[in-house]
Amino acid sequence: MIDLIIIGGGCAGCSAAMTARQRNLNVLVLYAGDGALGKARRIDNYPGLPEVNGPDMLKVLRGQAEALGAEFKRQLVQKVLPMGNSFSVLAGNDLYEAGAIILALGTSRVNPLPGEEELLGQGVSYCATCDGMFYRGKHMLVVAGGEEAVEEANYLSELGRVSYFIEKPHNTAGLAEGIELIKEKPLSFEQDGQEMLLTTNAGRHRADGAFVLRPAVAMTQLLPEVQAEKGAIIVDKDLMTSVPGVFAAGDILGAPLQAPKAVGEGNIAAISAASYLRALKG
Amino acid sequence: MIDLIIIGGGCAGCSAAMTARQRNLNVLVLYAGDGALGKARRIDNYPGLPEVNGPDMLKVLRGQAEALGAEFKRQLVQKVLPMGNSFSVLAGNDLYEAGAIILALGTSRVNPLPGEEELLGQGVSYCATCDGMFYRGKHMLVVAGGEEAVEEANYLSELGRVSYFIEKPHNTAGLAEGIELIKEKPLSFEQDGQEMLLTTNAGRHRADGAFVLRPAVAMTQLLPEVQAEKGAIIVDKDLMTSVPGVFAAGDILGAPLQAPKAVGEGNIAAISAASYLRALKG
Repeated sequence: MIDLIIIGGGCAGCSAAMTARQRNLNVLVLYAGDGALGKARRIDNYPGLPEVNGPDMLKVLRGQAEALGAEFKRQLVQKVLPMGNSFSVLAGNDLYEAGAIILALGTSRVNPLPGEEELLGQGVSYCATCDGMFYRGKHMLVVAGGEEAVEEANYLSELGRVSYFIEKPHNTAGLAEGIELIKEKPLSFEQDGQEMLLTTNAGRHRADGAFVLRPAVAMTQLLPEVQAEKGAIIVDKDLMTSVPGVFAAGDILGAPLQAPKAVGEGNIAAISAASYLRALKG
Repeated sequence: MIDLIIIGGGCAGCSAAMTARQRNLNVLVLYAGDGALGKARRIDNYPGLPEVNGPDMLKVLRGQAEALGAEFKRQLVQKVLPMGNSFSVLAGNDLYEAGAIILALGTSRVNPLPGEEELLGQGVSYCATCDGMFYRGKHMLVVAGGEEAVEEANYLSELGRVSYFIEKPHNTAGLAEGIELIKEKPLSFEQDGQEMLLTTNAGRHRADGAFVLRPAVAMTQLLPEVQAEKGAIIVDKDLMTSVPGVFAAGDILGAPLQAPKAVGEGNIAAISAASYLRALKG
């Protein structure tokens, strides 16, 4: 079992990873992309790194956390399941078990389409590598929220027929031949017998199944037990959420959306997680 | 008038100074010494500065804040007086006026001696350069809390006779000839007519006046209006204290006493101070 899984590899996640390593926890950081920091052109107020750009800062922070012994994997976490005194974490095709969790997902907000969450596991899937095989030789709709979806759609197109819808603008240059790119805005999902119906701004599309491939998962899907208010996760002064053993840090806690604040909160969350794990072991 | 005076030049103070400069405030940082960071041998969990020692980190942070336009002065702040929509700040012989204050004094706790605060300004002084002249040709007791007191006591010895008592162990090698070093533990002050009485563990000492020269001032003396609980200043989520316009960040807010946390809180306090000042001008 892993001591601590940190979801998110930005300022808050890297800072938490360093402090957790210092407290001698074994640490896995799962991150889906480079987030807001990866897009920052210049940060002027981060103490210790004058006039740094986002990608450079990310590189420095990840390198430092890795040098301290934290493991980083680029995998989208789809589900965190509280299991008594531990957590099961589903990421891609892998299942991890951890004693504590730090949510450091940043600002990536996901607004599920109407019908999407209700039909999850009944025709709608978030994971091409997990569920693609069920649609061998069939027709699949892909609702794509970012560039990461291109590779997954290409994989699905080896199994069956794929229609690709763009939810948020991204580069689709790498899409495999044979994938049908439909330039309509996806609006909602319905079920019709064994088939999935996707309504767009221009009509309706019918298929055997649908994959929603975004670079992030809605918190209501990831860990619905965690309470939030106005889009910000609710925490106590130790940054523990409403779920014991689950902590949160950084932009996911709300304004100000700033690198130094995220770093400070990652530090606090890791110390709290270490205390929590120590208390568990008695 | 200065927009923002930050009291303390460690992690929290420097971080606050950088963010405040970014928000275009003019910023004066008043600091009495190098605090806890100045003594740290190695910090392993500060994102961006791997395996840094305290003095090096302090140098990097101050340099960066100065490069952004913050002014640093080494002066012990003795008093902050709320004056309606601004604050008067007494430091050494200088009086400043500021729109907002950030308290980032670190962990330096001061326990005044019995009688000390009651007799302040009536025989007890915290400032040799301010009040020394009143004791020309007279006998002064110095209660010294750190090495900084040596130079001030030397100055007093040019004016009159000085007896030097050590409250906390420090290097007294630089004490001027003629200063009487009395190796007794100072315990309490009393007044006897025009004279000051200092009781020690070994007896009583009588003089015309007393100087208490510590590297820090008790919060009850500095800004008694600020509420605290168990030694930590009470703040809201924007890190504003019970006094509107006075914010706090870093170790002064309590555990964990960590550089990344202090940096994060300095960032938040500066943003809150900027909002507060903007609303005032509103």
